[in-house]
Amino acid sequence: MADLAALLAPLSLAPREHAAAASPAEWAAALESLGAPHTPTKTLLFKPKAAGKTADAPPLVLLFAHADTQTPSGALAKHLGFKEMRLAAEDAMRAALNAGKDDISPISLTSANAPGGAQPVLLVLDSRLQATSDAAAHARSTASSVLIGGAQVLEFAQAAGVESKVVDFEALASAAPPAAAPKAAAAPKAPKASAAALREETRNPDAELIGITTLKAGDFSDWYQQVLRKGDMLDYYDVSGCYILKPWSYFVWQSIQTWFDAKIKELGVENCYFPMFVSSDVLEREKDHIEGFAPEVAWVTRAGSSELEKPVAIRPTSETVMYPYYAKWIRSHRDLPLKLNQWNSVVRWEFKHPQPFLRTREFLWQEGHTAHLTLKDADTEVRQILEYYRRVYEELLAVPVVPGVKSEKEKFAGGYYTTTVEGFIPTTGRGIQGGTSHCLGQNFSKMFNIAVEDPAAPPEHRGKPEGKLHVWQNSWGLSTRTIGVMVMVHGDDKGLVMPPRVSSIQVVVIPCGLNAKMTPKERDVILDACANLEKTLKGAGIRAKADLREGYNPGFKFADWEMRGVPLRLEVGPKDLEKSQVFSCRRDDGARAAIPSAELLERVPKILDSIHDDMYRRADDEYRSRRRVVTEWADFTKNLNQKCHVVIPWCEVEACEDAIKDRSARVAEEGEEVDERAPSMGAKSLCIPFDQAQFPSIEGRKCPQCGVDAKRWTMFGRSY
Amino acid sequence: MADLAALLAPLSLAPREHAAAASPAEWAAALESLGAPHTPTKTLLFKPKAAGKTADAPPLVLLFAHADTQTPSGALAKHLGFKEMRLAAEDAMRAALNAGKDDISPISLTSANAPGGAQPVLLVLDSRLQATSDAAAHARSTASSVLIGGAQVLEFAQAAGVESKVVDFEALASAAPPAAAPKAAAAPKAPKASAAALREETRNPDAELIGITTLKAGDFSDWYQQVLRKGDMLDYYDVSGCYILKPWSYFVWQSIQTWFDAKIKELGVENCYFPMFVSSDVLEREKDHIEGFAPEVAWVTRAGSSELEKPVAIRPTSETVMYPYYAKWIRSHRDLPLKLNQWNSVVRWEFKHPQPFLRTREFLWQEGHTAHLTLKDADTEVRQILEYYRRVYEELLAVPVVPGVKSEKEKFAGGYYTTTVEGFIPTTGRGIQGGTSHCLGQNFSKMFNIAVEDPAAPPEHRGKPEGKLHVWQNSWGLSTRTIGVMVMVHGDDKGLVMPPRVSSIQVVVIPCGLNAKMTPKERDVILDACANLEKTLKGAGIRAKADLREGYNPGFKFADWEMRGVPLRLEVGPKDLEKSQVFSCRRDDGARAAIPSAELLERVPKILDSIHDDMYRRADDEYRSRRRVVTEWADFTKNLNQKCHVVIPWCEVEACEDAIKDRSARVAEEGEEVDERAPSMGAKSLCIPFDQAQFPSIEGRKCPQCGVDAKRWTMFGRSY
Repeated sequence: MADLAALLAPLSLAPREHAAAASPAEWAAALESLGAPHTPTKTLLFKPKAAGKTADAPPLVLLFAHADTQTPSGALAKHLGFKEMRLAAEDAMRAALNAGKDDISPISLTSANAPGGAQPVLLVLDSRLQATSDAAAHARSTASSVLIGGAQVLEFAQAAGVESKVVDFEALASAAPPAAAPKAAAAPKAPKASAAALREETRNPDAELIGITTLKAGDFSDWYQQVLRKGDMLDYYDVSGCYILKPWSYFVWQSIQTWFDAKIKELGVENCYFPMFVSSDVLEREKDHIEGFAPEVAWVTRAGSSELEKPVAIRPTSETVMYPYYAKWIRSHRDLPLKLNQWNSVVRWEFKHPQPFLRTREFLWQEGHTAHLTLKDADTEVRQILEYYRRVYEELLAVPVVPGVKSEKEKFAGGYYTTTVEGFIPTTGRGIQGGTSHCLGQNFSKMFNIAVEDPAAPPEHRGKPEGKLHVWQNSWGLSTRTIGVMVMVHGDDKGLVMPPRVSSIQVVVIPCGLNAKMTPKERDVILDACANLEKTLKGAGIRAKADLREGYNPGFKFADWEMRGVPLRLEVGPKDLEKSQVFSCRRDDGARAAIPSAELLERVPKILDSIHDDMYRRADDEYRSRRRVVTEWADFTKNLNQKCHVVIPWCEVEACEDAIKDRSARVAEEGEEVDERAPSMGAKSLCIPFDQAQFPSIEGRKCPQCGVDAKRWTMFGRSY
Repeated sequence: MADLAALLAPLSLAPREHAAAASPAEWAAALESLGAPHTPTKTLLFKPKAAGKTADAPPLVLLFAHADTQTPSGALAKHLGFKEMRLAAEDAMRAALNAGKDDISPISLTSANAPGGAQPVLLVLDSRLQATSDAAAHARSTASSVLIGGAQVLEFAQAAGVESKVVDFEALASAAPPAAAPKAAAAPKAPKASAAALREETRNPDAELIGITTLKAGDFSDWYQQVLRKGDMLDYYDVSGCYILKPWSYFVWQSIQTWFDAKIKELGVENCYFPMFVSSDVLEREKDHIEGFAPEVAWVTRAGSSELEKPVAIRPTSETVMYPYYAKWIRSHRDLPLKLNQWNSVVRWEFKHPQPFLRTREFLWQEGHTAHLTLKDADTEVRQILEYYRRVYEELLAVPVVPGVKSEKEKFAGGYYTTTVEGFIPTTGRGIQGGTSHCLGQNFSKMFNIAVEDPAAPPEHRGKPEGKLHVWQNSWGLSTRTIGVMVMVHGDDKGLVMPPRVSSIQVVVIPCGLNAKMTPKERDVILDACANLEKTLKGAGIRAKADLREGYNPGFKFADWEMRGVPLRLEVGPKDLEKSQVFSCRRDDGARAAIPSAELLERVPKILDSIHDDMYRRADDEYRSRRRVVTEWADFTKNLNQKCHVVIPWCEVEACEDAIKDRSARVAEEGEEVDERAPSMGAKSLCIPFDQAQFPSIEGRKCPQCGVDAKRWTMFGRSY
């Protein structure tokens, strides 16, 4: 940092430290936290192609612009005299400026970027910044910024000998008609492409039109984050690992809540609320169980300015919170079954890379905790709940899952057995645990002494230890992870694709064909028709919205609602009104059709159901085609590397599971196609599907890994 | 502590430290946290009356018994040869044993308690404890216990020279028929009773039958806690100030949620979820607003074993959490109104005495945060929401409230104005703020820079500071405090009285007239009739339950469900079946009536509505009769001291409000009738009721406190 300070000293600037910012939103929040006024900026590095034949490659272009300035690369390329410009890949960025996309900055420029240097760069300054004195720029770290004047940026570049140019983007925009978006599909993926080339190919050719700049099949992680944010599902938050659930995603959660809550109430489950705080005594009472959670437990040690005498933990899950009270409340077999559920949030302060919905430090879920007189009653409930979880995925989210039981290695710590619904993310070929319903057996009831007089005990045992029965317990949970799985499975290059039953808006109505020649009255006829259509649909219980915003053309509105994934669009124009029809367009498959107005109330609900069914069918077809029955070890990793799950006749021996993980990881490293985010990830057992009948007879089969007699067909895969 | 250790040393006992326990439940949890097996106990101090005329007062009786042993004081008195025994008041306890009810213990005995000592005590040991070796006893502190053998207790008493007796309560119970519960109503309150005598009078004469040992009109605070716990609303928790909301109370909350959520959705409000954590930068950004919250903010400083680089706070409310994002999301007047709501929990680590539902460290609520283009829109919404809050209280909870606006002094810090619904607790005569709907004006939008281009600005101001408009904001919240108010208003000496619309069970069906002479078939006819009745009622949407528990007689079941406040009881006996009728009993007024079976489905919903209406009407009559219009200062504190609210023509000057508080407190101190829990509490303004028309014309009236021209009729009172 010393050299940077020295560089900045002549400009009278000092870097200011703040929370590390891994995104523009985090950076904005971090800057706001400094309390100083500033102008938000963006810094982009482009790799241009020369327009004609030239001996030298053109320099990279580093653009430093106001965050809000529209900076179309096509227009800029033309203005600078290049054939085209693409965003530079991260490794090119590192090579040229020793920075990544989150800390790239004009003050990363050095004399190496001067003409004739190792990495020549042309600095382009947005004219909007020229007069500012407080433009924010990263200071060689995501956790450090300087507030710099536009003139100082040019001064800084000049000092390093770097060329620079000031560009007026507003003038640029008004000078040239907007470039038509290229229509070409994404280039087929080169089999042995370099990482940089691969990244180039992840660019969404329709980005300027629709806003999602990355292809789903390209940089999946970036696509996911863009779709969530631009689709209005969430926003980043200034505490790392925490996210804001915006109404668009919260509606999905509330739909799941409403459905599931009614179902469990039919089973006699009652809702309650236990405090979020746990005393350390209680939390740490069950050592084995807590061992897995301990490193992630958040501790409150201070209130106001007082240190607490004893720190209290925030619940990571509620077994140890609730069960001391179960011991107190359950006095007799007449108090059984006790079936409680909570809708709450829990905190697991993970230090691994957070991922919205899938791995967050706080998440919303329900946790059911029940106590039964017999194992049979507990068993029955475990499966009832799992069936509801399956239905949440399949009937609400249109996401196929495989219900089954976990291996001993993968079951809940301290439990008896764990059942699960396992989902599949086709783009990465990875499995994802969708929800789990655990039978805890009597392990916790013995630990917490939750016992009753056994009504079936012989009379001579009454009142004696032999007559005591420890209750059988279950716990089961489903979280907002559901939403992440839904987005990953259904989303496409245009953004979200919402399953109709959980979409806050199911039908969007858009006025079309309005033009400047129309009289106000002619316009109103169309706008009123849209408003009436919204009203009619709502009256029929369909969640509809007419988008009557002024100042946006239909194309913008189409793209906007497509990005948010609204299942069905209805277009109303003058010709449609003449013909007493509307034009419909499905988000999931783009199918367009005219619907006579008189048939709307009958047809729209059917179309929404078809959309659900088709979304489910497509996802299910995909999942099935990627679930490979394999009986030879040689085929195991091959299929895994084709982004598939593998079902093998398995011995169910834990050591064998370890060996499978180990061997599939090693082979993957040697293989050609490598998942760049998890290159050495081995496969683990995902579940032993309940539906064994779908597979050939297990009789006489051997485990392909170890050769021991197989017990059941078991699904393995890489997973989240 | 050294002397106690010395005393215990001969018994080879060492006190063990644990969390301070302010109740039996907390003690049980604390003992469990020690991990050592123990026998739960209770220690009670009685003041007997001698049976005949004797010169000396009898000694106090200290009973040390198993927690589960039934120890009727009448039978014990008789056994010991006393006329009667009453629980000793706390000050008698202090005088005799230097202990309070939460740490009283046999090892508090000293030689002062020997016969002829200053405070003679007779120790009674439950024979069940005689053979135990691990009976828990407090060790002169609520945070310390010893595990002591029954024999050791006697040994300890003997060492101090204290008399002791072992009593077999089981034998006592079987020897004597249970004493009929005295039927006398509570004695009228003596005007100048001493605190100890008052406490004696708080004893519920029906305690042994119904379980609530204190009268509502007696020790209200103790009554409240007993009703909540014995009525199954909540349980105490081992983190102080936190409580478990059991299904019986959570159902009330969920009913409020369902109703209110539907209402605000009609207004276009959307639900979302913001993280519970706030960075210190953001939290502390708005100094004035946070000033009030800062001393109560809980801080997470550690995760697992890692100290966090920057501690994060748990939200005490979400203004500063949300508004930085409002600034980001609201870019144009087209983004307005923005109306978001959250159902969540917030944490305010208060150090004042906690009170279930009314003052807890974590509580559930909803918080709405909206942004509008105009003050008019904001005003309209503030009132719409307040009207919903009024309806929650009046239409769901049958609790009358007075809607109005807060004085400048009492409004939300940082807000523009605050509207409120004010409730009233007749037993204490105190007001309670039921829910508040704030207009924040532009104060927060200016602080957080939430601004749009004013669509009404003249063209020459476009894009200039003059054309910028800061949005108008509201925030509004309703919490689980609602439940506490409902309990305090409606509960009676038998326990809870639940308003039918929020009661988890509205109708309980109890089989009656079963006896030992019946054949199993005769019994089944009745039990089946009850089960069918439950089914029929449920089919009609009535929340019904048949209590078919074996081993409990109808009297027990009546009292049990009365304690939980179930609005309507239906009794089904052989004679009822003969006559094709059931017998009904209303919880609210005890009215009994036969209902022909054929009319049940028609009559039960009507009865439930009548119960609601009558509960509301009674509470409203009470509230109105305790709301006194006063125009002379001389009447102000007099009415206050009669546990009334006072409505005066008020000047609305802040200094006058201070003076009123001051003067009403001082006079109270000099007065005769003193609220013992708040002897010097002055009155504050509760609200300026919207309905001014109910009062005489304000024209020409003067403020009775200061003589300045009155502006509006304003309600003052002591309050929670």
